Amino acid sequence: MKSGQTALTMQDAILTLQKYWSDNGCMITQPLNTEVGAGTANPSTALRVIGPEPWSVAYVEPSVRPDDSRYGENPNRLQTHTQFQVILKPDPGNPQELYLGSLRALGVDLRAHDVRFVEDNWASPALGAWGLGWEVWLDGMEITQFTYFQQVGGVTLSPVSVEITYGLERILMNLQGVSHFKDIVYAPGITYGEVFGQNEYEMSRYYLDDADVDTNHRLFESYAAEARRLLDLELPVPAYLYVLKCSHTFNVLDARGAISTTERAKAFSLMRGLTHESAQLWARRRAAQEHPLGVAAAPAPAVRAPLPTVPGPETLLFEIGVEELPYAEVRATADAVREAITAKLAATRLGHGAITAMATPRRVVVTVENVQPREPDTARTVRGPKVAAAYRDGAPTPALLGFARAQGVDPADVRVLDVGGVEYVAVTRDEPGRTAVEVLSDLLAEVVSGMRSARNMRWNDPALSFSRPVRWLLALLGRTPLPVAVSALASGDTTRVHRTAPDPVVQVMSAEGYAHVLRAHGILLDREARHAAVVRGAEATAAEVGGHIDVAGEAGLIDEITDIVEYPHPVRGSFDERYLELPASVLTTVMRKHQRYLPVLDGAGRLLPHFVTFANGLCDDDVVRSGNEAVLRARYEDAAFFWRADLKVSPEEFRRRLDKLTFEDRLGTVADRADRIAALALDLAQRAGLAEEPVATVRRAGRLAKFDLASQMVIEFSGLAGVMAEEYARRAGEPAEVAIALAEMELPRSAGGALPTGEAGAVLSLADRFDLVTGMFVIGAVPTGSSDPYGVRRAAIGLLNVLRSVPAMAGVRVGDGLRAAAERYAAQGVEVPDERLTEAAELITRRYEQQLMDAGHEHRLVQAVLVWADRPAHGDRTLATLERHVGTEEFDGLTTALQRVVRILPEDTPRGDAVDRSALTAPAELRLAECAKDAHRALHGREDDLAALIEVCAPLVAAIHTFFDEVLVMDPDPTVRAARLALLDDVARLARTTLDWSAL
Amino acid sequence: MKSGQTALTMQDAILTLQKYWSDNGCMITQPLNTEVGAGTANPSTALRVIGPEPWSVAYVEPSVRPDDSRYGENPNRLQTHTQFQVILKPDPGNPQELYLGSLRALGVDLRAHDVRFVEDNWASPALGAWGLGWEVWLDGMEITQFTYFQQVGGVTLSPVSVEITYGLERILMNLQGVSHFKDIVYAPGITYGEVFGQNEYEMSRYYLDDADVDTNHRLFESYAAEARRLLDLELPVPAYLYVLKCSHTFNVLDARGAISTTERAKAFSLMRGLTHESAQLWARRRAAQEHPLGVAAAPAPAVRAPLPTVPGPETLLFEIGVEELPYAEVRATADAVREAITAKLAATRLGHGAITAMATPRRVVVTVENVQPREPDTARTVRGPKVAAAYRDGAPTPALLGFARAQGVDPADVRVLDVGGVEYVAVTRDEPGRTAVEVLSDLLAEVVSGMRSARNMRWNDPALSFSRPVRWLLALLGRTPLPVAVSALASGDTTRVHRTAPDPVVQVMSAEGYAHVLRAHGILLDREARHAAVVRGAEATAAEVGGHIDVAGEAGLIDEITDIVEYPHPVRGSFDERYLELPASVLTTVMRKHQRYLPVLDGAGRLLPHFVTFANGLCDDDVVRSGNEAVLRARYEDAAFFWRADLKVSPEEFRRRLDKLTFEDRLGTVADRADRIAALALDLAQRAGLAEEPVATVRRAGRLAKFDLASQMVIEFSGLAGVMAEEYARRAGEPAEVAIALAEMELPRSAGGALPTGEAGAVLSLADRFDLVTGMFVIGAVPTGSSDPYGVRRAAIGLLNVLRSVPAMAGVRVGDGLRAAAERYAAQGVEVPDERLTEAAELITRRYEQQLMDAGHEHRLVQAVLVWADRPAHGDRTLATLERHVGTEEFDGLTTALQRVVRILPEDTPRGDAVDRSALTAPAELRLAECAKDAHRALHGREDDLAALIEVCAPLVAAIHTFFDEVLVMDPDPTVRAARLALLDDVARLARTTLDWSAL
Repeated sequence: MKSGQTALTMQDAILTLQKYWSDNGCMITQPLNTEVGAGTANPSTALRVIGPEPWSVAYVEPSVRPDDSRYGENPNRLQTHTQFQVILKPDPGNPQELYLGSLRALGVDLRAHDVRFVEDNWASPALGAWGLGWEVWLDGMEITQFTYFQQVGGVTLSPVSVEITYGLERILMNLQGVSHFKDIVYAPGITYGEVFGQNEYEMSRYYLDDADVDTNHRLFESYAAEARRLLDLELPVPAYLYVLKCSHTFNVLDARGAISTTERAKAFSLMRGLTHESAQLWARRRAAQEHPLGVAAAPAPAVRAPLPTVPGPETLLFEIGVEELPYAEVRATADAVREAITAKLAATRLGHGAITAMATPRRVVVTVENVQPREPDTARTVRGPKVAAAYRDGAPTPALLGFARAQGVDPADVRVLDVGGVEYVAVTRDEPGRTAVEVLSDLLAEVVSGMRSARNMRWNDPALSFSRPVRWLLALLGRTPLPVAVSALASGDTTRVHRTAPDPVVQVMSAEGYAHVLRAHGILLDREARHAAVVRGAEATAAEVGGHIDVAGEAGLIDEITDIVEYPHPVRGSFDERYLELPASVLTTVMRKHQRYLPVLDGAGRLLPHFVTFANGLCDDDVVRSGNEAVLRARYEDAAFFWRADLKVSPEEFRRRLDKLTFEDRLGTVADRADRIAALALDLAQRAGLAEEPVATVRRAGRLAKFDLASQMVIEFSGLAGVMAEEYARRAGEPAEVAIALAEMELPRSAGGALPTGEAGAVLSLADRFDLVTGMFVIGAVPTGSSDPYGVRRAAIGLLNVLRSVPAMAGVRVGDGLRAAAERYAAQGVEVPDERLTEAAELITRRYEQQLMDAGHEHRLVQAVLVWADRPAHGDRTLATLERHVGTEEFDGLTTALQRVVRILPEDTPRGDAVDRSALTAPAELRLAECAKDAHRALHGREDDLAALIEVCAPLVAAIHTFFDEVLVMDPDPTVRAARLALLDDVARLARTTLDWSAL
Repeated sequence: MKSGQTALTMQDAILTLQKYWSDNGCMITQPLNTEVGAGTANPSTALRVIGPEPWSVAYVEPSVRPDDSRYGENPNRLQTHTQFQVILKPDPGNPQELYLGSLRALGVDLRAHDVRFVEDNWASPALGAWGLGWEVWLDGMEITQFTYFQQVGGVTLSPVSVEITYGLERILMNLQGVSHFKDIVYAPGITYGEVFGQNEYEMSRYYLDDADVDTNHRLFESYAAEARRLLDLELPVPAYLYVLKCSHTFNVLDARGAISTTERAKAFSLMRGLTHESAQLWARRRAAQEHPLGVAAAPAPAVRAPLPTVPGPETLLFEIGVEELPYAEVRATADAVREAITAKLAATRLGHGAITAMATPRRVVVTVENVQPREPDTARTVRGPKVAAAYRDGAPTPALLGFARAQGVDPADVRVLDVGGVEYVAVTRDEPGRTAVEVLSDLLAEVVSGMRSARNMRWNDPALSFSRPVRWLLALLGRTPLPVAVSALASGDTTRVHRTAPDPVVQVMSAEGYAHVLRAHGILLDREARHAAVVRGAEATAAEVGGHIDVAGEAGLIDEITDIVEYPHPVRGSFDERYLELPASVLTTVMRKHQRYLPVLDGAGRLLPHFVTFANGLCDDDVVRSGNEAVLRARYEDAAFFWRADLKVSPEEFRRRLDKLTFEDRLGTVADRADRIAALALDLAQRAGLAEEPVATVRRAGRLAKFDLASQMVIEFSGLAGVMAEEYARRAGEPAEVAIALAEMELPRSAGGALPTGEAGAVLSLADRFDLVTGMFVIGAVPTGSSDPYGVRRAAIGLLNVLRSVPAMAGVRVGDGLRAAAERYAAQGVEVPDERLTEAAELITRRYEQQLMDAGHEHRLVQAVLVWADRPAHGDRTLATLERHVGTEEFDGLTTALQRVVRILPEDTPRGDAVDRSALTAPAELRLAECAKDAHRALHGREDDLAALIEVCAPLVAAIHTFFDEVLVMDPDPTVRAARLALLDDVARLARTTLDWSAL
């Protein structure tokens, strides 16, 4: 132990947390006696959060993650780590504060450390569960998962539960200042390693090396079958326990590398289904028992305070206090609130000055300057019946009486109103303006209840729904508190500053003084200021070690950092130079994606062994640095572990190991898939007409296709697939082009992601995606509206993007690609029916259509060019031409003319060759025939080219119109009729392949 | 909650225990995340107790016993109950006191309650583990298992670990004064039933009704295979986890009634083997790591205080303080210690008076009156070489010089000693007597270190071994403390009284005052007094409700009670009269066997709804009564549950269900076995020559044979097999004889147990046992020296007892029974090779031999009658006759004569018929031939009868001797020789079947 013997032992930490949560109303229970991956899976969470019964519980949960096995060698990763799980149902309204209290109880000095709530949208496919919340970071280390549970087992939760999951080893490492979990003092005189070390080693051996794959497959099937039976017997508890056993066994197989991507999707789907049924059955059972634990009460609606009087014009300050927003929501929320207030104010008569809105992760603040004390008074006239109907014989008719009664006036008090020469009775009344207080009190309430984000959640509030809970409102009109009540929230005159402040709730005396209060408490409300502070801080900090930050390259990350803190306080950390042996892409991926650290570069743009992180406000820099360094060290240790292990294996060997990974039951192993891709890529290269050199690259890269999927690095960091292939291939002495092609094969990674730049990479990328799409249609794993477990839609988009954007791929047609893929399947004994290929092509067409619509093209033009879905690059060119011409007189004339032609042609138009052209005798007929012949001749070889068509058809338009004016197509003589139709068909054929004219 | 809101909640109780044991040096860990039946199975106990490393740990362990499933309805039984497990390694020397401290911490008033340590020899076949210790009873309820672990996984433990396992539900029910586990307050505002009730119900459904038997069988096999593989891979931790999974799956199958007796034995043997290997592998692994946690230190040897001077004759008081002895050891230990002291004193010259020894469960006390202050002085003469050899030429030879040097005297100082006329040199020295203090100090130490019981254990003492730990020594010679040091124990002048006394350690001023000290502290040292107090107390207490105790009938239980308390304090309890609907045998079995309660009878000997229990010393009677009543209520509730359920099922239906119970893989179901027994019993009835009526009974009882094995009562209380058959059969309207025969079929239950009294029962009993023995020899499940998992030896003994003691069975021969059993197997397709039957018969012969030897018969006589092992009743009669005659001149003469005959006969003696008798011509030959012929004639029909043989052979003796004196048997003429041998064979044949004469 580095930092003194006074830190809690792990055992004390557990007892402390049990005491703390017991004192805060939780029941303390025991871990589950079946392996689970997390405390969430324990029925004490997974089932008990369902339904209206209150349930607050805390328990330790040793959580088994076979994938995390490291033989006890990694400082931070264990196959069994210890969770401390808390469920608060219903949300008590202040769960973050309760949680921070527990850290204090553990001895964490919140003012020295950097404690952050970092967006985390939690979802468990296996549990069919999701929730919104955060990872809690202690000096960069994720120590807790904090989630508002929204759904479990497909059941929407009401009330919502708060789940707090502590990672005890990580907290203890930080508290005790040790850098390896084995060094944690577990109890007086004994370390964690002494207690659990042998277990870690042996269980790692089991999970990584020695678990029998067949046996575990069998166990999985047995467990699933037993769960199925128990559901049919309506026993949710044992059924669910067997789902958990399934899940653990699945994880064992996964750690053994015996689960392919598609097997994973299938297993998840199975487990999710079983979990759903268990959850629903549980819900029904509890309902049938009339909820033995009662029904949790929701907070009462807030009561609005009496409205005050505000005499003069004042500034409005309205602060909506929230729990930490996802960074992407910070700006969006400020904008949305400003727009809502602007629009709502515009619908009133209240005079006001400038409206500004700013936001941090914890607050959205709107200022409206110069708010007038009240709306001006106005008069309002209400029209009644016509005078003619209002009086009969001078006396009020029932119509008038009714109107007067409704308006609350005496019938004698109505006046006459002339509307366009017709006389009506009418009533005019003075309408006094409302006070600003009245207007704003209602209006601001509506703003709050109308807040929505991209992804919304519920908490203990009975009516609100937003990205994260709204916890307080501050509304001041000048110095006067403005009462606002919405759902269970009532506004006040206090704001909340950093939670670590001695007094985190601070009174605000006036709207004008608010900014000062925030500044005084170290909060930068202005986003520009925060952004500048991040850039400045990062640059200065990097400069201390002679480095710099790639500010432009890191723009996205800097934006993100700006919106995850209220005060960006830079702290520089370092890591051991020896990790620089790892590929920079691995190091920076870990820094950026996992830790939001800015990499520090030297003058040549090479990575230095430093990083810059940002604490939320001032802290003890040394404490925070050391914590963050420990986190990065562990992550790099992990990566280095894989790196070293992987480098011992040749790409060929990895490639061979792919035959151990099932791709999909019916579609063979990943090796089979790689074989298909290799062959298909050569075929596509041919079709694309690639030169000899890139073909050689395709051939070699194909032979190694997907090899890195068997590497430990990719098994762990799946986002590095392709990246590692390139790294490992280069180090194995493969030519650069081959290495790059292997990397580019995985592109694009997302709908808008980077595309292959090389021809070989593009061909491989297409082959990969044609294979996937075709295979999935064979097994019926077709994407539906809400679900696309195998990523078929993404694959379709990817191949469209390649076909559309890589010029060298223009020669590849979708239909050919699918058929060629089908041939590869057939060669492996998997028959692909034609209907499946048609469906696959249709899916791709629909994605193409969607892409064009999303890009803002006009619907009818998109429909017109969809005939080119098989050659989307050509479709794009056609659409561009079309958009250039559409609306011109010339083109519209052509369109009208062609549409006349097309409309009159029946389905069974005789083929031109089979009719007697001599029946054409009228001059208009002959003229048109002549023009058509010329056009065909002129277009020869450019039949697909819309621009050419427009050019050659110019003379045709007049001839068509003349023809229709002078000739009756449907002549009674069938010979004549047939000849005329054939002539029109000649004309139509000119244009038919180029566009769907009927859509225009 | 009955008794006030101040009692601890269950949650608090757990936290309290964790705190208490943490304060007392234990590490606090978590339950295992695999189902276990007990905290013992957790590797934190099962593996960690192995080897020399210290390990003190406490943890909660939810313990799953599928068999105990009751749908949450039984007040006291749950499929998952909560254990709190403590391991103290090494034994700290005062574990009982530490344990009682934990009860105090839980709020148990030890002076009000009756806390008892009740002998329990714990063994887990599945773990291959055993230990000695106690169940701790709180007011009659077993709340804790307290064990000194001696062996785990076949590994002998050094040091020994103390295991303390609390049953939390039971403790909490008592503390909170609730009568159903569901009513325990688990945490503020929530009951145990509310937390776990649904789980109890559903898991009970699974275990009792719905678990898929095939699936669980498959799981068992998979787990076992995985454990096997992992052992071969030298990974003890995961291997052992798979053994635990095996064990749980086995328990599930068992609860589903899908495990037969023999399957159980096989599975246990498998699991035991795997556990052994895991344990041994673990031990090797830790040793290879050089015991990372260090080596536990044993207590240092005691240092004996300086010996005092005691001038006059005094009384010796020696008290050996032990932890609670098993009741059977109390008297035995007193006797053994008295004998040891008597013998050892006899080997000294110390004068003393009467020696008495008395014992309670916690102390053995020896008093020796009038111990003289010292041994008398004496002179001792040592003899050297003969004088002739001592001097040569008047000078000392080297022989004398050596002798003198050895004796430490000058050669000149030897004297001459005349021994039988031969002169030796000799040395005589005065040997002063030792003081009593010296003599006794050594002698008493030897007594302590020599103490042994029927079953011995080790604790933290480095050298002692006894039934339970020896914890203190009190030795006084009059008023003087007598220093005794043995191993780590040193004597003092204090005794220990009831642990609940305000000061449990009390100084004793003098040997004479000791008895007074004990009396003053409520301890009855004198066993007679305790016995009388039990009888008197029981009678008086029963009389209060107008009942009485069957003192004679309960003699065994009264003896037992006398030796489990130091002061028998009677407390009367009652139970609900409605339980009287249950058979009295069930009620009294539960009372006596499980609770050691004396049943209270009315004048007609009928059970009253009361019982008498005995607390150890004074207590709060109401508290103790209420606790004991709750225990009995729960047990009766259990029995009633089974009783009611069973009564809904007819014996025929139960009989049919036997086909669901596997007896043994190769030997079919229990139904198959019952079929065989039924047929075999009819066959044996024939052989025994039973009359028509008993045969009809055999037929009907055979048809129902073993049906109660399918009843829930017998599944739970296996000791009631047969008893319940009778009860259920009677209630189902079967004739009394049939019901009785079904009960008697199970007799004898033990080696000395009661035998069937009816012929039908005896026949069925034999059939049962012949079937078992034969079957087990078929599958090779033959008992070995240390192991007899299938009870073959017991079955053999049982059938011998029936054959020997039930006269009507005399006609049944062992060999016939085995062959008939084999025919029944053959009829079911199971072939029984002849060698197997021979081996089975041999086993029975050996058991018969052992029975005769155990009964004290002389070895050679037993050997002589073993020829009758096939008909042991006849063997018994023959042996009796033999013993009457052996040693008489007549019989010895006969024996000698017959032995002469037998000895000379070669193996290939020609058959009498095939030789030419005319070759016999000498008078002695003819005389002997004549005598033999007469004897054969006289014996006709009584050839088996030794008495008859002796009678008819009297004249033969002389003829035999004359023949040998006058005739040379081995005549050179082969014809003559053959005739003479044939003649001798005639003689030998007379006697050969009756006895093995060569053995005499």
